[in-house]
Amino acid sequence: MNGAQAMIRTLVDSGVDVCFMNPGTSEMHFVHALDAVPEMRGVLALFEGVATGAADGYARMADKPAAVLLHLGPGLGNGLANLHNARRAEVPIVNVVGDHATYHAKYDAPLQSDIASIAKGVSTWVRSVESPESLARDTADAVAASYGAPGQVATLIVPADTCWLDSPGPVGPSAISGPSTVPSERIEDLAAVLRSGEPAALLVGGSAMRRGPLRDAARVGVATGAKVLSETFPTRAERGAGTPAVDRLAYLAEFAQMQMEGLRHLVLVDAAHPVSFFAYPDKASDLVPEGCQVHVLSAPDEDAPAALAALAAALDAPDDPPVIEASRPDRPTGPLNAETMAAALGALLPEGAIVADEGNTTGLFAQGATAGAPPHDWLTLTGGAIGYGLPAATGAAVAAPDRKVICLEADGSAMYTAQALWTQAREGLDVTTVILNNGSYAVLNMELSRVGAGDPGPRALSMLDIPGLDFVSLATSMGVPGTRATTAEEFTEQLEAAIAIPGPALVEAVVPSTL
Amino acid sequence: MNGAQAMIRTLVDSGVDVCFMNPGTSEMHFVHALDAVPEMRGVLALFEGVATGAADGYARMADKPAAVLLHLGPGLGNGLANLHNARRAEVPIVNVVGDHATYHAKYDAPLQSDIASIAKGVSTWVRSVESPESLARDTADAVAASYGAPGQVATLIVPADTCWLDSPGPVGPSAISGPSTVPSERIEDLAAVLRSGEPAALLVGGSAMRRGPLRDAARVGVATGAKVLSETFPTRAERGAGTPAVDRLAYLAEFAQMQMEGLRHLVLVDAAHPVSFFAYPDKASDLVPEGCQVHVLSAPDEDAPAALAALAAALDAPDDPPVIEASRPDRPTGPLNAETMAAALGALLPEGAIVADEGNTTGLFAQGATAGAPPHDWLTLTGGAIGYGLPAATGAAVAAPDRKVICLEADGSAMYTAQALWTQAREGLDVTTVILNNGSYAVLNMELSRVGAGDPGPRALSMLDIPGLDFVSLATSMGVPGTRATTAEEFTEQLEAAIAIPGPALVEAVVPSTL
Repeated sequence: MNGAQAMIRTLVDSGVDVCFMNPGTSEMHFVHALDAVPEMRGVLALFEGVATGAADGYARMADKPAAVLLHLGPGLGNGLANLHNARRAEVPIVNVVGDHATYHAKYDAPLQSDIASIAKGVSTWVRSVESPESLARDTADAVAASYGAPGQVATLIVPADTCWLDSPGPVGPSAISGPSTVPSERIEDLAAVLRSGEPAALLVGGSAMRRGPLRDAARVGVATGAKVLSETFPTRAERGAGTPAVDRLAYLAEFAQMQMEGLRHLVLVDAAHPVSFFAYPDKASDLVPEGCQVHVLSAPDEDAPAALAALAAALDAPDDPPVIEASRPDRPTGPLNAETMAAALGALLPEGAIVADEGNTTGLFAQGATAGAPPHDWLTLTGGAIGYGLPAATGAAVAAPDRKVICLEADGSAMYTAQALWTQAREGLDVTTVILNNGSYAVLNMELSRVGAGDPGPRALSMLDIPGLDFVSLATSMGVPGTRATTAEEFTEQLEAAIAIPGPALVEAVVPSTL
Repeated sequence: MNGAQAMIRTLVDSGVDVCFMNPGTSEMHFVHALDAVPEMRGVLALFEGVATGAADGYARMADKPAAVLLHLGPGLGNGLANLHNARRAEVPIVNVVGDHATYHAKYDAPLQSDIASIAKGVSTWVRSVESPESLARDTADAVAASYGAPGQVATLIVPADTCWLDSPGPVGPSAISGPSTVPSERIEDLAAVLRSGEPAALLVGGSAMRRGPLRDAARVGVATGAKVLSETFPTRAERGAGTPAVDRLAYLAEFAQMQMEGLRHLVLVDAAHPVSFFAYPDKASDLVPEGCQVHVLSAPDEDAPAALAALAAALDAPDDPPVIEASRPDRPTGPLNAETMAAALGALLPEGAIVADEGNTTGLFAQGATAGAPPHDWLTLTGGAIGYGLPAATGAAVAAPDRKVICLEADGSAMYTAQALWTQAREGLDVTTVILNNGSYAVLNMELSRVGAGDPGPRALSMLDIPGLDFVSLATSMGVPGTRATTAEEFTEQLEAAIAIPGPALVEAVVPSTL
C-alpha cells in the first residue's frame, strides 16, 4: 500500500468520503488511489474555487468535512477566496494541497512556491507532511483539526513522494475535541442582565441558527422582552413556516444601527461583535450604539445551542414561542424585477429546499418573500468573497441529494466560478440556478455613491457596467439547460419548470439595473 | 486632490497608463479617480485571474508594467496563479491590492485577511501604505521596484482611507536601477571555455530571447560549435523566418536529457539551471548530465543581451549566423488533429503576430509548423499555473493594438479564466482564440502514466475526463463570435476567417484525445 492509498483509507475511516478536486501532476498518486478505496467519492471541478466552495456548501449541509484536493501554490491561490468564506463560515474542510516531492523543492522548479505562507491566511492549522510514515496520522489529525471547535479549514500540504512511497498503512480517527460547555455562572449572570428589563437583544449566529437553538432564543425573547437578531450573513439558517421570526442584521451600517438603536445590552451567541462590512469616510466602524454593553453568551469554540437552552431554562421561559405561520406570496405578474422575482421564489420554494444565496442587491427581497414558505435552509456569503453561490450550491447538492437546491446568483458574482455548472451537469446534481442579470455590479454602484467621493464620472461608472452576458449560452456551454425570462409571468413559469427537473437547470432573470 | 487621484497621476507620470482591474468597495475611490486622470486606461476584468494574466501579457509585449487593481485578500487569491506565472516570467507588474481603511482592520470585518502573507509568495517587494502622505511615493517606488532587474510583481497594499483622505499630490518617478553589467573577466573566462572545443551549449532565456541577443547567441555557436538551446518556457521568444534556429529544451525530462547528452559545459544566459518540471519516482530532478559544468554568463539581474554581444565580440564571431528561411506548411486536409491544426496555423500565421501559447499537449506540433512563418512573438506558460493563455492574449492585445494576437488554448486550461473573452469583446481586442478541445486533461493522462503507479482504474481516469464542453456557446455567452471545426479543411477556413476579423473571434478545434 502506498501513502496515497493509506491517506484516502484514513480519510474514509475518519468519516470523510467526498473529495472535491482539481488535481495536477503532483496529485496523480492520490487520483490513482481512488480505485483502491471505492468508498471515497471524487468530484471533479474545472477550477479550484469551485472545489473549495463546494466543500464549504457540503460542510454546511453535512455537518462534517469534505476533502479538497488542490495542485500546489497556484491551485491553492485559485481556491483561496472560497476558503476565506469557509473560514468565516466556521465550517470544517480538509484542505489537501499537493506539493513537489520533498527532495525536489530545492530545485525551485517552475511551480515551486511557498504554499504554507499562502495557506496561513485561511487556515490556522497548517501542516506539511514529512514522510510516508507520518502521512496517515497527519491526515487523521487534519480531519480532527477541521472540526475545531469552531470548524476550520485544516490545510495539509502533501509532498508527492509521501504519496508514492510505501506506507505502513491507514490509521484510525484522531480525537475530536468538540465545543466547550459554557459555565453555568455565565448563564446565571446573563439571565440576571436580561431580567433587568433594560432594552436588550440577542445576536445569534453560527451554530445557533438551527431550528432548536433559534426556538430557545425566541423563548428567551418572550420571557424577557429581548429582541432576537441574527448575524447578517449566517452560515446556515433554518427558516420558514414553523420557525421563530428573527431579524437579520442589515448589511448597510445605517440600517443595522437603526435595528440596535436604544439597546443597553447586546448578547452575542456564536456571533461576532457587529461592525461595518467596510469602512466609509465619517461613518462608524463599530455599529454597537453608545451606552450598550456587549456580552458573550457563547464564543465560537463553545456550545451555543446548549447555552441557549440553559439560558431559557434559567429564565423559566415558556415552551412555545410564536413562530411564523405558513404563507406564500401570490404568483407575480407584470414586470420582472427584484420584488416580483422574490415573489415567484416565495410562491414556489419546495419544502426542504436549500437556498444558496449570492443574489446580492437583487436578492434583497427574497428573505421577506420566503419567510412563510415551507421549512428550508438558507446559506449566505459569510466572508464577502464573491463567487461562492454556484460552488456552494454544488456542494450542498452532493451533501443532500434528496433535497432541491436553489442558487440565487447575481450576474457579476456568477462569473467568478461559473465552472460549477459543469460539475452540476456531470454529477447530475439537483440544483436550480437563478441568475439575476442586471448587467451591472449593482452593489458597487451603490457603494460608489456611499464612499463620499461625489458624483462619479463616466469612466468610473463604466468600470461597474457589465453588459452583454448571456447566461443561457453559458449554461449550454457546460451542459446545463437554461431559459431566459423578461417578465414576472415568464420567470414564474420557468422557475417552476426548472424546479421540476430532477437535475441542474438555469433560469436567467433579466432585471433592471436600478434597485 | 485625494490620495487616489495622486496615486493614479503618479502611476501615469511613472509611465504606467493601463490598469487591469476587478475592484470592490475598498477600491471605489481609485475607480472614482479615473475620471480625474484620463490618461489612465482602466480595463475591467470579470475575474481577478484575468486581470493579473492580462498584466503579464501586457508587460511581455510593452516591456513596461501595467497596474492591476484587486480587492483585498480574496481578490489577490483569485489573481495569484497568474501572478505566479508573471513572477516566473520576470515581468514587471504593479500589483495594487485595496485594503480596509487603516483604522478598520482591528474590527476583523468579514473581508479582513492577512494580505501581505498571501502576497509574499509571488512578490519579494510588498509594501503596505501607511498614510495619504506616503501613498504617492509608495506608488512611484512600486513602479521602480517592478522593473527590478529582473522584473517582478511589486505589491502595494492600499488602505481605503489613504485613498480618500487629502493628499499632498503626485510625485515624480522613483529611480529604476536597471540590470547590472556582466564583468568583462567573466566574458573572457567563458570565451576561453567555449574556445576549448569541448562539447558545450548556451541555454538562453528571459531577456535573451529577442532577435538581437538570439542572433548573438547563434554567432557564438557558429564561432565555437556550441549548441544554442532555449529554456522550455520562455517569457517572449522572437522567432520565425530570419531568426536563428534555437532548440527549446523539452518539457519531458528524458527528452531534455537527450538534448544535453554529452555536454561538458552548459552556459546559462538569463536562464535557470535545467530541472525537471515535476519529480517522478526513480527519475532525476537535476537534468544536467554528469560531468557537465554549469556556467553563468548572465544572471537574471544582469544585462544578458549586452553580455551575449560582448561574448560574440570576444570570440570574433562572424556577423551573419544562419537564420531560418521563410517557409510555410501547405494548408492541411483530412482529419483534424494536433498535427493538422499546427499546419493550418503555420500556413496562416500573420506577420507580426503574437502567439499566447497554452495549447499544452495539443500544441506540441505548433512550434515546428510555425518555425519558418513570418516573424512573430511566442509567449509561453512560464510558471506552470494553467489559466494563463486567454488573459495573457488579452493583455498582449492591449499592449500591441496593431498586431494580431493568436491564443492557442487547451480545453482544460481555458476553463480557468475564460472570462477573458468578455474583456476582449468589451475592448474590441484583436485576438483570435483557438480552443483545442480533446475532452480531456490530456497532459494529466500522460502524467498519470508516468508517475509509476501502474495502470490507472476507471475512477482515476474519470478525474481526467472533461467531456461536454461547448466553447462556441461559451464564446457566445460573452459576446465573442465562435465557430467549431471537426476537419482540417474546416479548421483552416475558420481560422482564416477568424484572423480576418479585426476583433475577437474563437475557433473550437475538436481533436482526438490521444496524442
